[in-house]
Parts: sequence; C-alpha cells; structure tokens
Amino acid sequence: MDENFDFGMVGLGVMGRNFILNVADHGYSAIGLDTDAQKVEALTAEGTGKQVEGTVSKEVFVKALKSPRKIMLLVPAGKIVDAVIEDLLPLLDKGDLIIDGGNSFFPDTNRRITYLADKGIHFMGVGVSGGAEGARFGPSIMPGGPKEGYALIEPIFRAVAAKVDEEPCVAHMGNTSAGNYVKMVHNGIEYGLMQLIAETYDVMKRGLGLSNETIGQTFGKWSEGRLKSFLVEITADIFKQKDPLTGEDLVDKILDKAKQKGTGKWTSQNAMDLGMPVPTIDAAVTMRGISALKEQRSQASKVFDQAKPELIADEQWADTLEQGLYSAFVITYAQGLAQLSAASLEYSYELNISAVARIWRGGCIIRASLLEHIRKAYERTPALKNLLLDDAFAEILDSSHNGLRSVLKLAIDTGIPVSCLGASLSYFDAFKSEKLPLNLVQAQRDYFGSHTYERTDQQGVFHTEWG
Amino acid sequence: MDENFDFGMVGLGVMGRNFILNVADHGYSAIGLDTDAQKVEALTAEGTGKQVEGTVSKEVFVKALKSPRKIMLLVPAGKIVDAVIEDLLPLLDKGDLIIDGGNSFFPDTNRRITYLADKGIHFMGVGVSGGAEGARFGPSIMPGGPKEGYALIEPIFRAVAAKVDEEPCVAHMGNTSAGNYVKMVHNGIEYGLMQLIAETYDVMKRGLGLSNETIGQTFGKWSEGRLKSFLVEITADIFKQKDPLTGEDLVDKILDKAKQKGTGKWTSQNAMDLGMPVPTIDAAVTMRGISALKEQRSQASKVFDQAKPELIADEQWADTLEQGLYSAFVITYAQGLAQLSAASLEYSYELNISAVARIWRGGCIIRASLLEHIRKAYERTPALKNLLLDDAFAEILDSSHNGLRSVLKLAIDTGIPVSCLGASLSYFDAFKSEKLPLNLVQAQRDYFGSHTYERTDQQGVFHTEWG
Repeated sequence: MDENFDFGMVGLGVMGRNFILNVADHGYSAIGLDTDAQKVEALTAEGTGKQVEGTVSKEVFVKALKSPRKIMLLVPAGKIVDAVIEDLLPLLDKGDLIIDGGNSFFPDTNRRITYLADKGIHFMGVGVSGGAEGARFGPSIMPGGPKEGYALIEPIFRAVAAKVDEEPCVAHMGNTSAGNYVKMVHNGIEYGLMQLIAETYDVMKRGLGLSNETIGQTFGKWSEGRLKSFLVEITADIFKQKDPLTGEDLVDKILDKAKQKGTGKWTSQNAMDLGMPVPTIDAAVTMRGISALKEQRSQASKVFDQAKPELIADEQWADTLEQGLYSAFVITYAQGLAQLSAASLEYSYELNISAVARIWRGGCIIRASLLEHIRKAYERTPALKNLLLDDAFAEILDSSHNGLRSVLKLAIDTGIPVSCLGASLSYFDAFKSEKLPLNLVQAQRDYFGSHTYERTDQQGVFHTEWG
Repeated sequence: MDENFDFGMVGLGVMGRNFILNVADHGYSAIGLDTDAQKVEALTAEGTGKQVEGTVSKEVFVKALKSPRKIMLLVPAGKIVDAVIEDLLPLLDKGDLIIDGGNSFFPDTNRRITYLADKGIHFMGVGVSGGAEGARFGPSIMPGGPKEGYALIEPIFRAVAAKVDEEPCVAHMGNTSAGNYVKMVHNGIEYGLMQLIAETYDVMKRGLGLSNETIGQTFGKWSEGRLKSFLVEITADIFKQKDPLTGEDLVDKILDKAKQKGTGKWTSQNAMDLGMPVPTIDAAVTMRGISALKEQRSQASKVFDQAKPELIADEQWADTLEQGLYSAFVITYAQGLAQLSAASLEYSYELNISAVARIWRGGCIIRASLLEHIRKAYERTPALKNLLLDDAFAEILDSSHNGLRSVLKLAIDTGIPVSCLGASLSYFDAFKSEKLPLNLVQAQRDYFGSHTYERTDQQGVFHTEWG
C-alpha cells in the first residue's frame, strides 16, 4: 500500500464514507479505517478509480498516512470517541492531528484537547452539517480548536466544503470547543425552524382545513421567496411523496412521535446556564417531548374538545402565514446567535458571528437566503448583541410581526398548539419592552424570601418589610 | 452546658435561627452552631426563656447532643455543605443523622448519602419551604433519604411543620434525593406561578390601562375565590405598599430585572433530560433571563412600536383574566407533577404524589386551595400520569380555557409578552391533540439525516429515499 496518504478517516458509516469520497474527488489521497470489513469493502467499491483505500487495521491505517497525520473521526459521540483516541494514540507522533467530526458535547472536546495537547497531539472538535448528501458533495464545516491544527487541514476542508458564490462554507470558528458549540446551536436553531414549519403546517391543516396538495404547493411557493431555505424546500418535497404501500400521501402515514439525539436539548440547557434565553428552541424541545407522550395524548383527546377548522383560507391567509413563519425564523436565528455571542464571552471562544452566518449559507441543514442578510448585519456591527437591534432586521420585523400575531390568534381560536410561533412572538414583545412586569416578581421574592430588590430611581439594594 | 439536647442546627442565618426557635417552641431542646459569634448571640437573645443554646464550637455542639444525634444544616448549597460535613464527621458516631435543609442540587445529595452511609451516618436531603416566616411558625417540609434516618427526626418535623386541618405539612417523600427533587420542582412551579401573575398584571396594566389600585383590588378579590393562594395574596398586598421615599406605589419603583438562584433552571434542565416537558416553567426561566437584558431591551424599545392598551376593561374582563390565570395555574401544577412522576420512575424515588400535594397545602410558597383538589385527584388515581387526565380537572379546564384564549389574544393585539400564559395554553392544546404535526418533523429528519420513522398503520422502522 502507498504510504503517503493525505487524509485518514475513522468510521466508514454513510457520513464517513461520503466525506472521504468527497476528499478524494478533490485530488487528495485518502484512507479509511473501520473495524467492520463490510464497510471497508463498501468504501473501496464506491471509491473505484479514486485515490481511496480502506483497511480494518489501525496499524496499516496510521502507517499509511503522510506526516503530520490528519485523521478525522466520524463515529458516534461519547465513549466511542475516547476509545478510538486511546486505540490510535500509541501509534501517533507528536504534531499529528485528530479531528472529531461528530456531535460531541462541547465539554468533552475541551477535556480531549487538553489531554492530547499534553501528548503533543493537536485535537479539534469540528461540526459538520449537511447530512449524507452534504458530506458527499459539500457540507458546511465548523472547525474549532488549535489554530496550528487547523492550518494542517484547512486546504482539504476548503476543497470539500459547500461553496456559496465560490466561497467555501468553512472557517476557523474559534478556540477550544467553539466548533462543537457552533454546531450545537446550529442544531438548536434547526429544531426551532423545523417545529415552526410543523406548526405552520398544522395551522394550515387543522386550523384552515387545507389539503396536503395546497399545503405542499404553498411551501413550494414560499421556498422561491424570502423563505428560500433547505428546510422549506424539503417540506415542499415531502408533501409530494406518495406512499408506495398505500398510494396515499406518505406524510399522513408517518407517526407523529418525533425523536431527538440531544443537541437541541443541550442548546436549551446551556442557554439557561448562560442566562441567554432561546425560548423558541426550548419550545421545540418541549414539543418533541410532548409528541412522544402519544398514549396520554390519545387519552386526553377523548376528554377534551378537538381543534375545529375556521375554513377561512384565502390568498391573504397564505401571505399572513408567510409573514408569521418568516418573522419567527428571524427571531429564532436571533436567539441562537445571541446565545453564540454570550457563549463566546463565557468560554473565550472569540467567535466571529458574521463568519458563522457566512458558512451557514451553504451545505448545512439551516441554510437559507436569510443568512446572507444576517452575515451582513454582523459585518456592519461585529459586536451586535442581538439581530433584532440591527436596523434592517428591525424593518423586516416591523413589516411582518402582525402576520405572526394573526396566525397565533387563529391558532388560539381553533385549538392548534403553536408553542414555537408563540414563544417567538413573546420573545420579540419582551425584547422590545423597556419595562417588563418583573418588578412584581422582584417584589414577591423580597416579600417571601427577603431577596432584596433594586430601584428604578437610585442605586443600591433594598428590602421592605411587606404586608 | 446541658449535654442532652434533642436537636442541633448548623447555620444560624435567619432561616436556621427561625427553624431552631420553632423547634424549641414545641418542647424540644435545641442547640445552634455558627462560626459567627454575632449570629450565636442573636439566637440566644431571641431564645431567652426557651430551651435553646448557641455555640461557636463544633466540639461543644456535638458533645451537647443526645445520641443518636440529629443535626440539621441550613447553610448555602454547594461546597459549604461538604465542608460542614467534613468538619463534623470526626466528631460523630455511627447512627447519627445529618439533615441538609438547603436547596442542594439533587445529585449532590445522592453522592453525600452514599459517602456517609459508608461511615454509618444517616444523611437526608430535606426541602424546606415557606421563607423566614415559615421556618419560624411552620414550614412545609419535604424529607427524602433513608427511612431509618427519618424515623429519628419525624416527631420533631411533625411538631414544627405547618398544619392544615391539624395535619402536619411533612411526609417522607421517598428514597435518596427525593426531598431535594420535590423541593426543586416546587420552586420550578413557584417560578411559573409568579411569572403567570406578573403577565396577568402586565395585561391589566399595559394591555387594559388599569391603575395599580384596581389591579391590587382585583388580585385581592381573586385571593378569596378559587385562586386563593399565598402568591396571589401577597400580590394583593404588594399593590397596597407605599414607597416611604416618594410616597408613591412601591411596585412602580422596583427595577424590572428579576434574579434567580438556580432551582427553576434546574427544574427545566432536568425536565428536558427526562423528556417530560414543563414549558411554563421553561418560559418563566426565560423571562427572568430577558428581564436581565435591561440595556438591550431599552435600546430595542426605541426601535419598535410599543404596547398600546385596548382600554376595554370591564367587569367581564376581570372574570376572563381570572379564568386565564386559574387555568394556567392548573396547567403549571400539572406539568410539575408529571415531572415528579417521571423522575420517580427514573430515579426510583417511589414518590406518592398525593402526599406531595398534601404537604404543599400549607407552609410553602406555592400553597393554594387548588392543592386540596390535586391531592384528591392523585388519591383517586395514584398512578395518574397527568393531572389533565383527571375528570375533575378536565371539567375545570373545559370551563376556563376559553378565558385563557381571550387573554392571550388581547395580549397579542396589544404587544404584551405572555410567555407563560402562552406556553400553558400550547401545552394544553398539544396534550389534548391525538395527532400533532410532528409527523412532518420525522419526515424532515428522515429526508436529510436518514433517521427513519415509524408508521401509523404498521409496526417497524421505515426509511424513504425522498425528493
């Protein structure tokens, strides 16, 4: 075997196999390692005619790589990452680079970076988004960690990443676990957008009594306008899919119990630790949880009255729903990016939010034409604390928040749960309120717990003997 | 010094001092320990005429206690608890009992129980609610941990606890950290109820343009009806309080930045780990977070139009708001108790939810006449998975959810953020939906990530090549 491979991949599942083929397509020689011989065979079969090899032997794998070695892992997050690292470690040399491309929990990445730096090995946590298709033909890549490590892999990552206007969708995100953190929040936003689309679908279906065909066409039309985005596009596709078993619309045959792998939950939990709220994402996590309680819901549905359509769908309703969905999309990105700004300070990531928006424009699941405007907003004001404080976005919301209000009122009247649409409007209305009613909460806390309060008219900390 | 004290308290802040005086009032001799001599003096001064002593010496303290010793800590949660334990440990004998009465994070309690059991010491995590007033004259007490330990302290706890219909508000909650967990969820519900009251106040103030006097009177009237509860009562009081500095209403002088100590956040974070959503509590945590972003809110308030009152307040509106608040209260308790049921299974607590509701009826911050109905519901059906599945509560919601809908629509029209009221309705509408639109989320996940889906019409796991 040639002993001069440019790139090594550990884990030859669909993602790993597609990523390594993508690398080979761009003129780099690449070798894959997996304990499963069938996966190795699948790689060599698919890689015919390319500079790609596969092996089940870690010794062969490590020996085959050019020094300093560039080894990427696409294996399930958690203990397996540690096990693979321990497996490879005795075979590596100082200056080699290990890249974890999975959805690792960011504190794990911090731990691994420190552990491996002590042994002279560069370690990077790198977010990769775009699913199997993206891995094969151009994902969005979010690398974080040591810059010396990034310098080694940058040419390959730039070659394989998705391109928008010929710019590759990859940039060094920041220090330590910045790559995993950015990917985590990407997935949190993804949870939010998906649930917003699902709620809009529910309003159209149960609230307005529209057919799947009309619903699909509406999403299709929207995906040609300012809502242009991967998730809206595939939603339009989904409504076209027929069920091969029954010939009916496949979407109606899918069970309404949504699964989750944890990145959305981590986003919400960490946002709470930072005190930087992401209520639309929280609500999306909530709705996946409630969806799983199918049996209880079924029981409750027999006790309570059910949603009743208003049957007032007209051309104007499609525009109203579009306004609602678009403003909620903007508010969801705003929440996620505000979380990134807070995390950057808290964890010293030194994130460039404009660069984050730039590399999200292509390849990844939350890619959307909206992201170009977000990129520009953060380019204009790099220290922007919230997207809603940008003039262009303030204008967008000024002209579309009333659509969101109308959709919510329709949903409330017809009994459709719109957690994410509602959380988005509440966030907007709270964010633009100079004065919130939390003075009362502070008074209550001081009343029963002597927790003290601040005043509006002077500095200091005050306590009152109430009642 | 007498060497035969029934009860020892470590930490003589307001809570500890009040609790020990409460113990002494019930015929038990008690000794307090604090490193701060001033606090010890405060105790002996307040304890004149009672069987109460204080000391700064841990040796004197431990030696003065009857065997097996019953020592309660009311010190700040975290490392101080561990430090106090290490301090006392060399002086204790097998069979002694240490009770942590603070808001400790429940995994810490599990760790301490195991650590101390190895040394033959019983350790219990005990929730205490009611603030300083409750500690002095009758708190709600939520003990968890070893039953042998509880047997030692039960007579004292029953004596000092609040009484409802002569029944003390204390019961052994369950195994290991059950006491801290129940208190954590108690506080989560407290966050939810406080924010619901605050939003209702905001709707009355900014939405309907009502005066503080009318708002206070309205809460006062409600507190005599089915909303009778400590939090609604103190809210009515708060609106009566004048500011000694300006003579104006004090509530208007309090800064609208709410603080938090973490228990609400832990409730939400752990609910997400359990997959048992508590969206009203999540939204309350969110609103405390947004309230803290005062500077950004102030900036945004200049960019966007502000809330505009509808000025349609009439007698009927008070009833509508009462319906809205009452149904949201019910839904918030329902969420918290469903979380307790899920946690009881996950952590083998063996909770009796009816007993939880019973001891929350008096002494604690979330005490409310509603809890007697909740107690009965769980007595009727101990395995009740959700309060909304109880017939009596289904009836309550059937007759009041429309009030909640009206309040929300008014808030939406006038630009008032109603995160918790909205989250409560969404939870209700989702919970009673046999079919949610999460079939679309599953289709999307399968489309971009090959995550597979289940079907409505047959068993198994399916994948489609979409698009």
